[in-house]
Amino acid sequence: MIKSLVTGGAGFIGSHVAKHLIDAGHEVYVLDDLSGGFKSNIPDQAHFMEGSILDHQLLEKLFAEQKFDYVYHLAAYAAEGLSHFIKRFNYQNNLTGSVNLLNESIKNQVKCFVFTSSIAIYGDLPTPMTEEMTPQPEDPYGIAKWAFEQELAVSKKMFGQDYIIFRPHNVYGEGQNISDPYRNVLGIFMKQILEEKPLTIFGDGSQTRAFSHISEVAPVIAESVNHPAAFGETFNIGSDQTSSVHELAQMILEAFDSTLAIEFLPERMEVKHAHASHDKLKRFFKIPKECKLEEGIKKMAHWAKKQGLKAGKKFDEIEIYKNLPSSWK
Amino acid sequence: MIKSLVTGGAGFIGSHVAKHLIDAGHEVYVLDDLSGGFKSNIPDQAHFMEGSILDHQLLEKLFAEQKFDYVYHLAAYAAEGLSHFIKRFNYQNNLTGSVNLLNESIKNQVKCFVFTSSIAIYGDLPTPMTEEMTPQPEDPYGIAKWAFEQELAVSKKMFGQDYIIFRPHNVYGEGQNISDPYRNVLGIFMKQILEEKPLTIFGDGSQTRAFSHISEVAPVIAESVNHPAAFGETFNIGSDQTSSVHELAQMILEAFDSTLAIEFLPERMEVKHAHASHDKLKRFFKIPKECKLEEGIKKMAHWAKKQGLKAGKKFDEIEIYKNLPSSWK
Repeated sequence: MIKSLVTGGAGFIGSHVAKHLIDAGHEVYVLDDLSGGFKSNIPDQAHFMEGSILDHQLLEKLFAEQKFDYVYHLAAYAAEGLSHFIKRFNYQNNLTGSVNLLNESIKNQVKCFVFTSSIAIYGDLPTPMTEEMTPQPEDPYGIAKWAFEQELAVSKKMFGQDYIIFRPHNVYGEGQNISDPYRNVLGIFMKQILEEKPLTIFGDGSQTRAFSHISEVAPVIAESVNHPAAFGETFNIGSDQTSSVHELAQMILEAFDSTLAIEFLPERMEVKHAHASHDKLKRFFKIPKECKLEEGIKKMAHWAKKQGLKAGKKFDEIEIYKNLPSSWK
Repeated sequence: MIKSLVTGGAGFIGSHVAKHLIDAGHEVYVLDDLSGGFKSNIPDQAHFMEGSILDHQLLEKLFAEQKFDYVYHLAAYAAEGLSHFIKRFNYQNNLTGSVNLLNESIKNQVKCFVFTSSIAIYGDLPTPMTEEMTPQPEDPYGIAKWAFEQELAVSKKMFGQDYIIFRPHNVYGEGQNISDPYRNVLGIFMKQILEEKPLTIFGDGSQTRAFSHISEVAPVIAESVNHPAAFGETFNIGSDQTSSVHELAQMILEAFDSTLAIEFLPERMEVKHAHASHDKLKRFFKIPKECKLEEGIKKMAHWAKKQGLKAGKKFDEIEIYKNLPSSWK
């Protein structure tokens, strides 16, 4: 039986990937520290270990015991905007933790290391962003993701470790943490609606993104290891449909049949337009059916109403308060 | 009085920078964990604190108490070739540690953060390497240095933190650790001569470098903060004279009047040719008198003979043994 480790498997994208792997017949081990994910997300058939990728002794033991065929590394703290203010935490979790996993993968001959990077590595480059562009991240989150992408390339040369890199963008959908005050905009809007508060937008809301429903992302990541041609390659993944944050707010209000106001906050330093070309992805993989934003929002809204809010955790280890948006204080 | 912190001030380049700062009238604080440096290197007039840049609570206290004007960040574990095998250690020391210092510099309004990066960030790019090239590091050491360079740029945009980046290459000279079995080639050759062992070269020795005497590097770094035009800029720094590793071995044998053999080991994965343009440096700074390699080697050899060897520390936390050159085992 194929044995796969999914880090962050109690999180949003990770738990969906774990489900697809189980459906494909893998024996799935989930490693998650439950800092952002929930036990209830983990598929019943998966083996669950509570622990952090920062615990390299735990990883050493786990890899030696289980001899994984594949590693799907989705554990991360993905609050991009907040990463300026939690630099140390960001590099530890998103880079050193990833390196710990890579070390064990090299030592234990993992067949392919699947890594979810981010569109954040492109920073403010012109759209549509393509894989041939030289990354130019604009925040610590993107810098950490880009550094680990380079680390994978170097480890392939030095140790022959195969890998596939995905750069998803603005993934949303059922199972997402809608109680986190820092990420991501769809979850935050739904949280605000459920709390009957105005929807808050940084700036005028004209920044655009390609919001991508999980159904367009998770299945491709899960089955990617069946395509050896993709080993050593990097792929943008997500929706082709771009919308402004203002449009998004209006669609979500509509889906909830809500008349709450939209409140515009001072703009923060963020990338103005971020959407990516998926031509390369389409050349290597079979792409799932498109899920239009309106339709995806409806599905997620339906789930969110049923699900309700959990206690939102304020991040309690802010490292720099200077220039922190006041709504995050 | 101007207050400056020099991290790695018990190390080779750091101790020379500290001396120049003292000569220029700064009050100098040295922070060093003595993992690679020596107390005897620290100038008498400097305040010395033994501690690591990984200890962020120590840094918090230190910065709050001392209110430094400038930070010269030279602490690093600079064994480039070994970094493949100590990835976690590399990213923690060379990236997270640097981020800890940057956090405190931002919080405490340090006027300029001077960072010594490395020519390693260029990887195998064509020579002479110029600052306009997009870095393409080929090992974890270079990736960590490049990530922190990006972090400085982002922190300037977000927090207004000024900085100057230097990318030195193959610096050698009096005060260097010649007991470290992993770095750098001049120290290793002299260690081998003092131990009356053959000089070992990876490959055929045709790889070229521009070996740079400390007298061409340290004074420029020390006085750089007096040039506000250099804030936010990046500079290659070092010698214009390139030599092959084989030529270097012969010069060193000559300087020691030694007839020891040269032993050629299997080549390792390393950059073939690395030398950099210093045109930009010359436009911004007054450059010290050139020190020809033959002359620099003589000075260092004289010092090394007097100094003798200390107990060489084998690195005891190798993370990956696969493909580790057997001479390092």
